[in-house]
Amino acid sequence: MIPPQVREILEEMRTERIRGASWLAKKGAEAYLLLSELLVGKELERALSEMRKEIPSINPTMASLYNLSRFIPVSSSPELVRARAEEFLRLMDEARREIGNIGSELVDDGEVVITHSFSSAVLEVLSSAWRKGKRFRVILTESSPDYEGIALANELDFLGIPHEVITDAQLGLFARRATLALVGADNVTRDGAVLNKAGTYLLALACHDAGVPFYVAAESFKFHPELEAEEVEIVERPYHRQGHRVRNYLFDVTPWKYVRGIITELGVLVPPKEI
Amino acid sequence: MIPPQVREILEEMRTERIRGASWLAKKGAEAYLLLSELLVGKELERALSEMRKEIPSINPTMASLYNLSRFIPVSSSPELVRARAEEFLRLMDEARREIGNIGSELVDDGEVVITHSFSSAVLEVLSSAWRKGKRFRVILTESSPDYEGIALANELDFLGIPHEVITDAQLGLFARRATLALVGADNVTRDGAVLNKAGTYLLALACHDAGVPFYVAAESFKFHPELEAEEVEIVERPYHRQGHRVRNYLFDVTPWKYVRGIITELGVLVPPKEI
Repeated sequence: MIPPQVREILEEMRTERIRGASWLAKKGAEAYLLLSELLVGKELERALSEMRKEIPSINPTMASLYNLSRFIPVSSSPELVRARAEEFLRLMDEARREIGNIGSELVDDGEVVITHSFSSAVLEVLSSAWRKGKRFRVILTESSPDYEGIALANELDFLGIPHEVITDAQLGLFARRATLALVGADNVTRDGAVLNKAGTYLLALACHDAGVPFYVAAESFKFHPELEAEEVEIVERPYHRQGHRVRNYLFDVTPWKYVRGIITELGVLVPPKEI
Repeated sequence: MIPPQVREILEEMRTERIRGASWLAKKGAEAYLLLSELLVGKELERALSEMRKEIPSINPTMASLYNLSRFIPVSSSPELVRARAEEFLRLMDEARREIGNIGSELVDDGEVVITHSFSSAVLEVLSSAWRKGKRFRVILTESSPDYEGIALANELDFLGIPHEVITDAQLGLFARRATLALVGADNVTRDGAVLNKAGTYLLALACHDAGVPFYVAAESFKFHPELEAEEVEIVERPYHRQGHRVRNYLFDVTPWKYVRGIITELGVLVPPKEI
C-alpha cells in the first residue's frame, strides 16, 4: 500500500493547475524518494507496483510521468529505489542545462524571440544565450487564465533580458515581429506532435504564415515512446467567468510539420522532410 | 466651433474600450444629430467642417467613421444634416438585418459555428438562422482582456442558442470541432484585408489548417475606400497585469486569402481567386 505521506504528494500533483511536465516529474521522483525512506522489502515492492500504475495515471498523456515510472525498478531494496530516483533528478537537471547550451547557439545578436506560457527549458536557453553575451529581446504571452507568462516576465526582469508581454490573442500580430519562436513541451508523441500549453499551435501557425522558424525545447524524458497524437487526451481544468463555464483544456497539439526542430539534450531533432 | 455637448460625445467615442465599428458609427451619427439641434447657418457649416476631420481622427483606421463623415454634407441647413444622420442610422439598421437574412442561409441544421469577440452582425446572423428554425450550436471565445465574449454568451443564453465559451488560446483546439467560422469586422481595407478583434487572424489560420470555411459579416459602411492593409495603424489601449505592462492592440489583420467570403447587405463577396 502507498503510505499516506506519499499519497499526499500524488494528490498535490493531481491538483496542480499551472506547472507542467518537469515539475510533475520532479515531484514524482520526490514521491519515490520518500517511499524509499518509509518502506522496505515486500511492502516496498508492492507499493512500487502500485506506483507504476498510479504515477502515469496522474496525467496519462504526460510522457515525463510515464518515463519516470519505468525508470524506477519494482524492487525490495530502498537503496536501489533511492539511487534511481536521484539519478532521474540529476539527469533532468543535466538535460535542461545541456538544452540551454545547445539552444543558445540558435539565438543570435539582435534576435527577437517569441514564446508562449512558461517553460524552464526555454528559460534555460534564454539565460544561457544571455550569459554568453548575446543581446536579444523576448515577446511573451501573459498566458491566460493562469498567467504563467507573468512568472516568466519576472524571471526575465531578474536576468535583465528585455521583453514585452502580450495577450494570447495577439500571437498573430506579434509573430511577424519575431525572428525566432521557441516554446517548451509537456509531451512529444511517437509521431512527433508537440503537446504544450493551449495556444502553442496558434503560434506555430502564425510563425508558419510569417516564415518565422518555430523551435521546441524538450528533454528526452518528455518523448512518449507509445502515445500517438490521435490518442492524446487533453486534461481540462474547471474555469468560470462572470457566471459562465469556460472550457479550459490545458494543452493543444502542434503537428510535426510546423516544427523546425526540437532541441533536446542529445541535439536538435528535425522533421524527416528536412533530413 | 464644435459645441461642448457634442465634444462630450466625441470624447466618449475616443475613450470607449470595448465596442467596435457599429457602435462608434452610431455614436458619431448621434453627435451630428445633436449638432443639428444646437447650431444653424455659418456656425453649423464651420462645425461640420471641423467634424469632417475630427470624426475620422477618433480612429483613423475605422472605415465606419470615415464613411459617416463623408455621408454628412457640410451645409448650413440643420434639417439637411438631421435628415442625412437619420438616414445613416436607418441604413445601418437595415444593413445589419439584411446581413442576418443573407448570412442565415449559410447556417445549416447541425452546424457548429465558431466566432471570436462580439459582433452585432454575427449575432444578427445567428438569431435570424435560429428564428428560421435552424438548430445549431456556437463556440465562442471569452475574448480577453475586455471579455466581449461574455456579453455574446449572455445574448445567446437569452435567445436559447446552445453554446460553449472557450479561452482565446484554445481557438486552435476548437476550430477543428467547428463546421463554420463567422466573425464581424471593424474594417475591410481596399485590398480586402479584414480588421477585427485581435485573435481573428489566429482563428482564420486555424480554420485554414482544419479546412473549416471562414466567413466575415460586415456592412458596406465598414469598407474603407482608400486604406490598404499595409497602412493600417492599430489602436492600442493600456492594460496591466500584476505590475507588468501588457501590450494590447485591439485588432489584427486577416488577409483576403484566408476569407471564404464577406457577407454584406448587398450579397456575399468572395475573393477574386474564387470567381
